[in-house]
Amino acid sequence: MTDRLLYLPLGGAGEIGMNCYVYGYGPAGKERYIVVDLGVTFPSMDGTPGVDLIFADVAWLEERKDRIDGIFITHAHEDHVGAVGHLWPRLDAPIYARAFTAHIARLKFEEHGHDELQIKTVAAWPEQVDVGPFTVGFLPVSHSIPESSALVIDTPAGRVIHTGDFKIDETPVVGEAFDRELWESVAKDGVKALVCDSTNVFNHHPGRSEAEVVEPLNELVASLDGLVAATTFASNIARVKTLAVAGSKSGRSVVLLGRAMRRMITAGIETGIISDFPKTVSPEHAGEIPHENLMLLTTGSQGEHRAATAQLSRGKYLGLKMTEGDTMIFSSKTIPGNETEVARILNNFSELGVDTISGRDDIHVSGHANRPDLTLMHEVVKPQTVIPMHGEHRHLREHARLAETNGFKAVVAPNGVAVDLSGNAPRIVEYVETGRTYLDGSIQIGALDGIVRDRMRMAQNGLVVATVIVEDDEPLGDCWCELRGLPETGLSRAPLVDVLEEDVNQFLMRAGRKTLSDDNKLEEELRRIIRKTTHSEVGKKPEVQIVISRLSN
Amino acid sequence: MTDRLLYLPLGGAGEIGMNCYVYGYGPAGKERYIVVDLGVTFPSMDGTPGVDLIFADVAWLEERKDRIDGIFITHAHEDHVGAVGHLWPRLDAPIYARAFTAHIARLKFEEHGHDELQIKTVAAWPEQVDVGPFTVGFLPVSHSIPESSALVIDTPAGRVIHTGDFKIDETPVVGEAFDRELWESVAKDGVKALVCDSTNVFNHHPGRSEAEVVEPLNELVASLDGLVAATTFASNIARVKTLAVAGSKSGRSVVLLGRAMRRMITAGIETGIISDFPKTVSPEHAGEIPHENLMLLTTGSQGEHRAATAQLSRGKYLGLKMTEGDTMIFSSKTIPGNETEVARILNNFSELGVDTISGRDDIHVSGHANRPDLTLMHEVVKPQTVIPMHGEHRHLREHARLAETNGFKAVVAPNGVAVDLSGNAPRIVEYVETGRTYLDGSIQIGALDGIVRDRMRMAQNGLVVATVIVEDDEPLGDCWCELRGLPETGLSRAPLVDVLEEDVNQFLMRAGRKTLSDDNKLEEELRRIIRKTTHSEVGKKPEVQIVISRLSN
Repeated sequence: MTDRLLYLPLGGAGEIGMNCYVYGYGPAGKERYIVVDLGVTFPSMDGTPGVDLIFADVAWLEERKDRIDGIFITHAHEDHVGAVGHLWPRLDAPIYARAFTAHIARLKFEEHGHDELQIKTVAAWPEQVDVGPFTVGFLPVSHSIPESSALVIDTPAGRVIHTGDFKIDETPVVGEAFDRELWESVAKDGVKALVCDSTNVFNHHPGRSEAEVVEPLNELVASLDGLVAATTFASNIARVKTLAVAGSKSGRSVVLLGRAMRRMITAGIETGIISDFPKTVSPEHAGEIPHENLMLLTTGSQGEHRAATAQLSRGKYLGLKMTEGDTMIFSSKTIPGNETEVARILNNFSELGVDTISGRDDIHVSGHANRPDLTLMHEVVKPQTVIPMHGEHRHLREHARLAETNGFKAVVAPNGVAVDLSGNAPRIVEYVETGRTYLDGSIQIGALDGIVRDRMRMAQNGLVVATVIVEDDEPLGDCWCELRGLPETGLSRAPLVDVLEEDVNQFLMRAGRKTLSDDNKLEEELRRIIRKTTHSEVGKKPEVQIVISRLSN
Repeated sequence: MTDRLLYLPLGGAGEIGMNCYVYGYGPAGKERYIVVDLGVTFPSMDGTPGVDLIFADVAWLEERKDRIDGIFITHAHEDHVGAVGHLWPRLDAPIYARAFTAHIARLKFEEHGHDELQIKTVAAWPEQVDVGPFTVGFLPVSHSIPESSALVIDTPAGRVIHTGDFKIDETPVVGEAFDRELWESVAKDGVKALVCDSTNVFNHHPGRSEAEVVEPLNELVASLDGLVAATTFASNIARVKTLAVAGSKSGRSVVLLGRAMRRMITAGIETGIISDFPKTVSPEHAGEIPHENLMLLTTGSQGEHRAATAQLSRGKYLGLKMTEGDTMIFSSKTIPGNETEVARILNNFSELGVDTISGRDDIHVSGHANRPDLTLMHEVVKPQTVIPMHGEHRHLREHARLAETNGFKAVVAPNGVAVDLSGNAPRIVEYVETGRTYLDGSIQIGALDGIVRDRMRMAQNGLVVATVIVEDDEPLGDCWCELRGLPETGLSRAPLVDVLEEDVNQFLMRAGRKTLSDDNKLEEELRRIIRKTTHSEVGKKPEVQIVISRLSN
């Protein structure tokens, strides 16, 4: 049987988030595997109430765990590294990453009590790691977190370049610039496939450099009186540094607020990525400094309810208060879906009299390659095939079109679609069942297990609990109903619970022994009555929980 | 006691939606009132699961219903007219509106079985209506629905102009252009207060006219092969007409899909607002027409799950299917908060191979005045005071600042803040309790009643129902637990329900008569045990419903 080279996304090709890609090499059904990224996506009250985290369903991989030779993490964003602590025990293969990413992954392993020796630090290209039939190198690329890397994946069938998240930035402020010559040298002997970030394919402007926000932020911060606070992703260490320097230059003491902010800057210092970060003061000391001499750098640019920014907007955080004359800067873009939360914070600040600056293009740049930069990447790598990843379906489709326009073969492979790259053209060879795993409290549950669906139904319909005691197939006493999440009084103006109990009791009095002796039948009838009565009283068909207790003499 | 002129927003000043403003005139505490607009805002799974509609809490008005002389509706958007059917019985005053708006209001009255004679059609300015101490006229203004009007409210204390929603559009395609001279003539003898739309205060560009999208849409539709569908707010009759004409010009038969689309165009024709709408064909006939000769105009531009656009994206609607080569145009802007739903639809279409065009500036214009247009409005009216309305807090605050920059007094008056306008400067004189009323099924409930909060808690935490039968202060048999929305198995690998029942039964065996005889105490203890055990098993503290049945011999 001939060997084949497989690409199989389990997460990240059909959404922006929870990245998880598999590469396989070997005879069909006996391939050895490597996994690229184990990321999370975030739940919402909207579709996943009560869920703590979401990651790709790795059941398919778990069934083949003896054939996994390694897990490679491209960079330390949560949607790429966030699930390592949760999923590693199910995959049980060594994890490879560069120093900064490995540092963050180890913090997660520490929280879970996993063996940190399973995380191996790899230097940048030209260093390579041999695992099974794969030889993998970390090729530096610019993004919005230090040490982001593409993976150069060599196999007997040829070389694949997996970009990870990237932008083309020659002046990234912190970390490595995009080195076009290096990339060309890596690609020059031919690349089977470029598996490529698609996030910003709909943006037609050339991408802007991280360095472009430095002066606007310096000027902005210098122009403001009062306390200045600024929020951005803590992992964007370049931006955090730019903001800190802007604060420092304007005579302000810098305060880091929020766990991620301290964690990331510490990681940056410990791994040697930043060496000249302005001196910071603790929140406790900040209370003694006049407002006009303070610069707060805060977590929560996406409106996260418990983050420092949101807490400041509600009044105070660690004793610090913002008031009239102070300014909150959002050096960020609101991710679609987070608009309502961010707006709530802007309104809270407005009520406090605090000025806010948000949505300004000159003080934020994206970490992803725009359309012209994607074209540049295609041309630098000149792959046999472009495979768009890291995008919703519409991004993948548009990116494939762009690649075709640029003269390359392209294939849209959403989660679960396995592509054989060993031939002259990519070939879809398999459809694998994929899905989402929810971390619900401390337990991993399947998105389709129905648990969250049941919760959403209670949220939409309310609940009636009805208890009936049956003794020797006769009702003993009256039925009791309890309501949750339903109006107390309906159209008849009588308490809904009374109306329900009366209807149920009337039914029980009339019910024959055949019904009363059959749990299923009795439950079905009671559910029907309760739903019907509730609907006619309050216009809702509730969820119903029937509890039948049987006594016998 | 001297008379005073009050402005009191109950809804719309603190959000964009559920508009409801009160004007009062008379001695303090004995004012006569008029109400301006009775609108709705829309619920979300996020914060108001299971709720059908949201409107302002009118309890304050209801207590004073004998002093309400009239209800005036500025235009027929749902956030201004949507609650008339629901709230009118509680206020019981005649409703005044222009013909198109009255038509829409009457349809709502019809659905509720209210007396349609209570809705009175008023012609445009210079016609005026005398109600109590007020004389009110409907001054035409351009917006994104026909016959939008500002209200000219004359009182013994002077004239107030309440803009309603507006933009400055001299070429609105359908309906009345903004007539600056008319407005100047109305304002020339002095205006006490301009109560003014704030929606687009953060947009620094001059507003664009509805006419500007005509040519781009003609060109776009003409350039496309295959079926073309386009979605926009059905109430934007000008846009619907522009789209229909673009379809017709490109040799396409026009099909209206969605109830609102048919209802609005019918209303436009019946009230004489549109006379030259292209001929339409029914969805049934459309099936026989080749795709390249079809133009569908669909509801659901905001991603509404059950609207025509969403249904088409999921496969078909009324037998019509879109496929590869067809195009869906969003002639709209996604309202913040709706991004996820709209993106879902774009991705569905992508999976079908249907091209989508969205987020393009040249094929959509806003219906609200941008910042420079607000300045123009201030200068046209030259009021004594500007009172920003129709905005979140940040919009109101920013608009007040703009007015002050423009040389006018301004006051930020969010919902519940009563402003006395009779003096030389506005004066905040009262804080009225306000809030939101939820239509939940067929019942109106208060936002703070805790009903929706209980539902959200079940959605976040899951539910355990535990039933205990106590006979003569002794447990009779074992406790039963039922789970909803919780994982079946926890860390111990035993079924959660078994672990819970065992813990509860052990407690019951040891419990003294004092605990068993006291419902509250027993319930409290059981709740504590269930929450503790569930937390240690699955990491969640559930909602708990305890049912204690007492039997006695």
